[in-house]
Amino acid sequence: MHSMTELDDYLRENRERFEADLCELLRISSISADTQYRDDVLLAAKWVANQFRLLGFETETIEGSGHPIVYAESPQVENAPTVLIYGHYDVQPPDPLEEWVTPPFEPTQRDGNIYARGATDDKGQMLTHVKSAQAWVQTAGSLPLNLKYVIEGEEEIGSTSLQKFLAEHPQKLKSDVAVVSDTCQFARGKPAITYGLRGIAYFELRLTGPQQDLHSGTFGGCLTNPANAMCMMLSGLMDEDGKILIPGFYEDVIPLSDSEREQFDGLPFDEAAFAERLGIDRLHGERGFSTLEHRWARPTFDINGLWSGYQGEGAKTVIPARATVKFSFRLVPDQDPKKIGAALESRLTELCPPGIRLELIDLHGAPGIVVPLDSPYVAAAAKAIECGFGRPPVFIREGGSIPIVTTFRETLGIDTLLLGWGLDDDNTHGPNEKFSLTDFHRGIKASAYLWQELSKIEIGA
Amino acid sequence: MHSMTELDDYLRENRERFEADLCELLRISSISADTQYRDDVLLAAKWVANQFRLLGFETETIEGSGHPIVYAESPQVENAPTVLIYGHYDVQPPDPLEEWVTPPFEPTQRDGNIYARGATDDKGQMLTHVKSAQAWVQTAGSLPLNLKYVIEGEEEIGSTSLQKFLAEHPQKLKSDVAVVSDTCQFARGKPAITYGLRGIAYFELRLTGPQQDLHSGTFGGCLTNPANAMCMMLSGLMDEDGKILIPGFYEDVIPLSDSEREQFDGLPFDEAAFAERLGIDRLHGERGFSTLEHRWARPTFDINGLWSGYQGEGAKTVIPARATVKFSFRLVPDQDPKKIGAALESRLTELCPPGIRLELIDLHGAPGIVVPLDSPYVAAAAKAIECGFGRPPVFIREGGSIPIVTTFRETLGIDTLLLGWGLDDDNTHGPNEKFSLTDFHRGIKASAYLWQELSKIEIGA
Repeated sequence: MHSMTELDDYLRENRERFEADLCELLRISSISADTQYRDDVLLAAKWVANQFRLLGFETETIEGSGHPIVYAESPQVENAPTVLIYGHYDVQPPDPLEEWVTPPFEPTQRDGNIYARGATDDKGQMLTHVKSAQAWVQTAGSLPLNLKYVIEGEEEIGSTSLQKFLAEHPQKLKSDVAVVSDTCQFARGKPAITYGLRGIAYFELRLTGPQQDLHSGTFGGCLTNPANAMCMMLSGLMDEDGKILIPGFYEDVIPLSDSEREQFDGLPFDEAAFAERLGIDRLHGERGFSTLEHRWARPTFDINGLWSGYQGEGAKTVIPARATVKFSFRLVPDQDPKKIGAALESRLTELCPPGIRLELIDLHGAPGIVVPLDSPYVAAAAKAIECGFGRPPVFIREGGSIPIVTTFRETLGIDTLLLGWGLDDDNTHGPNEKFSLTDFHRGIKASAYLWQELSKIEIGA
Repeated sequence: MHSMTELDDYLRENRERFEADLCELLRISSISADTQYRDDVLLAAKWVANQFRLLGFETETIEGSGHPIVYAESPQVENAPTVLIYGHYDVQPPDPLEEWVTPPFEPTQRDGNIYARGATDDKGQMLTHVKSAQAWVQTAGSLPLNLKYVIEGEEEIGSTSLQKFLAEHPQKLKSDVAVVSDTCQFARGKPAITYGLRGIAYFELRLTGPQQDLHSGTFGGCLTNPANAMCMMLSGLMDEDGKILIPGFYEDVIPLSDSEREQFDGLPFDEAAFAERLGIDRLHGERGFSTLEHRWARPTFDINGLWSGYQGEGAKTVIPARATVKFSFRLVPDQDPKKIGAALESRLTELCPPGIRLELIDLHGAPGIVVPLDSPYVAAAAKAIECGFGRPPVFIREGGSIPIVTTFRETLGIDTLLLGWGLDDDNTHGPNEKFSLTDFHRGIKASAYLWQELSKIEIGA
């Protein structure tokens, strides 16, 4: 067995190099949602592919109708497990730009963190699994097991190309377990293995009233105002107790077990401090559930954006011709996004007032998932995390969605180890996204030890 | 008493001269909103002032910080009523230019109409009251009553200078009644006296939740989303039947009298054609009232603009930190905008969910107004319109607000006769503004007879 001391030394000596590489990637504005940034997305893909080529991995850049997938395989090791590592090089749009302390694509170090769009989500986290492999290659000459990397550029917009690739090449991606670092620790210095994720169903609703904006004095009162209609319809989707008012919405929800609820209760969580960090005087969620349950294990309805009419200075007395809203439901096992979408459409049609035409666009959907805790892979990951972070992980669920985890289960028949190096105040998707550099290096170390621990598992048993 | 036959002849013989004068004024691009056109605005003021000087009226061009007010007085006639005539020589910007069939400042005759920016609003309508005075001066040597003209150049940008002038010189403007032609006939060939205007109370509501946008997966479910809150709060202001849900909102509404409702019902109004023109399949308003009642005589609640969160392409899974909405109520007599504002604030405070801070900004307000129909001034105007248009006027209300009418009531204690010669398809504020030349001449004649009819009223009674 390879000496981990030498590897530890390599990691310690190359900290600055790793950070410089991370900054290089963070400087690329690979915003997948905005077609204006198509070239930058491509540039990020090339950058990632080059990392693998430098390690001597067999590397492909798979181009289709969307943004490319970078695929790489480490040289084959017989009788050793195969691990599928998933990550993404695309990022969320950085809006609102004016709230960033330093520009989103000029990575800046402050207080031990690196600030940039994508720092945590997912460039920084993804890179830990590349740098850990680099450490193995540079110190041991090779890896102790088989790694297959699939790094996509459409995670923030629904992973269309990847889903297609997975469906078409299940044999190529055949693995024993998947590893994804795109989640969070439970708290600063409290690393976690995430065993459950919420799903999502994301929609855009467009309401149209009159053929053009109308004078609100001359016409006000005799026709339905699309903005008024929008508010009325959306408010008809959830009551004051946070209960979602779509017939059948809760039908397939698997209730939380007593042991899970107890375990969540046992986690140290300071509600007041959490609310203060968010800048609100009071948390508020579905009646009858705790805050961790609200965030991890209950479905939600959130408006993500909306607009209509006059948004300038002062007053303009207009009845808008149109109103648009983007909104999404977080789902939990076993809710089905397609079934939710159909129920939503009937509910909205029922709520739509006279004189308004509605168009509902299904932007993307994925079901929630829960991974079994009693596998040797989970045990290996727990050990590796203890090596990297100096303490054993806690077991948590997470409110976000990583649709690919569901697809890995369904297409490849494998479970995913969700090993999050981020923190929940990293501002992923918001302004001033950051990633702790300490955790970046701990993550690389945990990843390097993960290859070691996973290589010990007997496969084909 | 002066022979009206001679005056009728003068009007008939001078039609071309009047049209040539109108075109001269329409050629001046007096766009008050655009500082680039400052000289043209000034030129229009000089042109108007010159019209009065040619009639031997005492004329002033009052210059302040904004565009000048042209003020003129006809020679004094003892024991005769004094009429204040209001109009404006400024015009709206002509954009979008590419949609004009002929250029906005090259008046062109087509199908009996004159096409130009300002044709109806308000150069053409205003000029009818100048040309009618000219007819009197040229045929009778003088007017049978006292005319005070106040023609401003800031109507399209808020009348700041005029409001100041009125507040500072109420004695100078002392009159028995005001006349304004800046509205519409009820329909082609259906002249109208507008005896009621709605008021307005316009607000901006800003809701703040978390201190910045949050990931809707990580945080969704445990805090109030400001965009959700906004929809819920706004939908709590009006029910499905169009009834406004603010305690005391209807308290001061003077109900429509049976005779008013009957009179509105008697007006020929094609609901289906009207809906088609707006591009909607169905009109919809407060239960229990007709479409004309909805537009003219009932209060409304309309969202004028709103925005929150992500408005770009595709999906962004964010809980917005803020949500903002501009909305307004059209008011009817005797609703008080200040009282409505206070009641609104309590209602919104009551509707505001946990974890949301609200800020309500009062952008502007003005009460509605109704002119009594049983006054001798209204009777005189009705007679004059019958002489000018060949049929008696209908009595209508209008849904918009003309703030100067409220100011005349409050500052000078006088009512206003709103005598509209325009048509509601004249494209005021839009491309291809027009004015019917037939109605231009009818308006001049009605105005000439108005001076005759008003001069018969005994004042100081």
